[in-house]
Amino acid sequence: MKIALIQQKYYGSKSKTIKVTTKKIKEASKSGAKLVVLQELHQNEYFPQRQSVEFFDYANSYQEDKKYWSLVAKKYNIVLVTSLFEKRTEGLYHNSAVVFDSDGSEAGKYRKMHIPDDPGFNEKFYFTEGDLGFEPIDTSIGKLGVLICWDQWYPEASRIMALRGAEILIYPTAIGWFDEDSQEEKYRQLDSWITIQRSHAIANGLPVISCNRVGLEIDKKSVIDGIRFWGNSFVCDGQGAILAKSNDIDENILIVDIDMEFTKAQRDIWPFLRDRRIESYSDIMKRYCD
Amino acid sequence: MKIALIQQKYYGSKSKTIKVTTKKIKEASKSGAKLVVLQELHQNEYFPQRQSVEFFDYANSYQEDKKYWSLVAKKYNIVLVTSLFEKRTEGLYHNSAVVFDSDGSEAGKYRKMHIPDDPGFNEKFYFTEGDLGFEPIDTSIGKLGVLICWDQWYPEASRIMALRGAEILIYPTAIGWFDEDSQEEKYRQLDSWITIQRSHAIANGLPVISCNRVGLEIDKKSVIDGIRFWGNSFVCDGQGAILAKSNDIDENILIVDIDMEFTKAQRDIWPFLRDRRIESYSDIMKRYCD
Repeated sequence: MKIALIQQKYYGSKSKTIKVTTKKIKEASKSGAKLVVLQELHQNEYFPQRQSVEFFDYANSYQEDKKYWSLVAKKYNIVLVTSLFEKRTEGLYHNSAVVFDSDGSEAGKYRKMHIPDDPGFNEKFYFTEGDLGFEPIDTSIGKLGVLICWDQWYPEASRIMALRGAEILIYPTAIGWFDEDSQEEKYRQLDSWITIQRSHAIANGLPVISCNRVGLEIDKKSVIDGIRFWGNSFVCDGQGAILAKSNDIDENILIVDIDMEFTKAQRDIWPFLRDRRIESYSDIMKRYCD
Repeated sequence: MKIALIQQKYYGSKSKTIKVTTKKIKEASKSGAKLVVLQELHQNEYFPQRQSVEFFDYANSYQEDKKYWSLVAKKYNIVLVTSLFEKRTEGLYHNSAVVFDSDGSEAGKYRKMHIPDDPGFNEKFYFTEGDLGFEPIDTSIGKLGVLICWDQWYPEASRIMALRGAEILIYPTAIGWFDEDSQEEKYRQLDSWITIQRSHAIANGLPVISCNRVGLEIDKKSVIDGIRFWGNSFVCDGQGAILAKSNDIDENILIVDIDMEFTKAQRDIWPFLRDRRIESYSDIMKRYCD
């Protein structure tokens, strides 16, 4: 199955940005992609760089946004994973991935469960923790285990998606470097990020798609100078082997052929699900065992 | 803190093998190592290549084995992680890591929780699943999260060790290649193995030590020709960065300086433990959600 990851920059406005995204989706579809994955919060700049109530207005268009991407999915006959700012009611917002099937119908929605909050990533100010759990989204091309960014650091999330029948793990994400860090530190961060996601593939015998933003986004009002989103969107197979990867500078449409039969072969010979000691895992439900 | 991993071959008999191991422990101690980690079932050949009741006799010496390694730990003033075949009663055996403190006392024991069983690794024939859970072992140099081999594929195991206060994760292991596999496949397997263990470091902000066997062990009576244990014993820090690694051919005493303060610094800025959604993890306790 051909899939596409669209790694792109923010173009200074929502309208300019979604115009570019839509053009790239068209290209991806022409190349035969059946699934297109967009990066986290792909319509706007990464506004959680700082806390400001003005940004909540971005969520006002949530219903219209869904209509727009639904039409795009239908027009280009693709399953589309979007990442939108969901307004639920006044003062209650989510960081949500909405998946549209190739007929334009809304196949399902995942609300980001793990919310980060650290310098330059003030997400707890904007996003309420998801309350839909880790439920794969059923589509015409398979069950998609859609998670978002910070979720990628949690093996619990990917494991539950696998146990609930996900056939592929998908991470729209927005992560980058601060220019003040050394090259070595930047490399270590990137390597950690790739490694932890590949580990979810390995532990569960599932392919992983991770689609990241690219480009420098400066926010003079933030406590940091800006984030240089490190791209490196990638796809690996259920053994964790990297099938394709973008670089850290350029926009890219990464088109990859995924073998959806690989999971059975891999799990049959590396049967990690067989040997789980479920009766001994209750401490996972604790904050800390003190 | 200086630590040492002893990656070695099997020398054709237990007596020859432990003589070499003891000599290497002496060397490690002279180099200033405070902790020495041995590979899985380091006293014998990797007998689970095939099923044969004769091998159960190896466990008869469990009490003597413990006395021996206790004296070694005391003599060289090191904390020693051994991997022994434990006889509990007739027909009931465990694959156990016994940890001795530098005064020779038995600091604690971990019984392998996840037991593999696939061609060349018939461990379910020999070893009963551990019943001591995932409990770090308290020693004079810190709380050691000792796990064994197959456990390394389970993020649940390392997470619980971390939640129970482990300050370092330690994997004695015995894993290798079959000569009939292609170089590419061998490389992918090795890379998966390194990646999943580094991911436990990253997810939990803890250093990881993995000590593997090396050398070809032929067993003509097995369904396979033999296992070429792939070495590659390594240590990574709590960001998953590899600090040192052995190769896939040679015996080696890998001496590494570990910064035990790193965990706090790493967890404070990448606070994964802070954001766990413990109320949403109950599916982890299920075999499968069908």
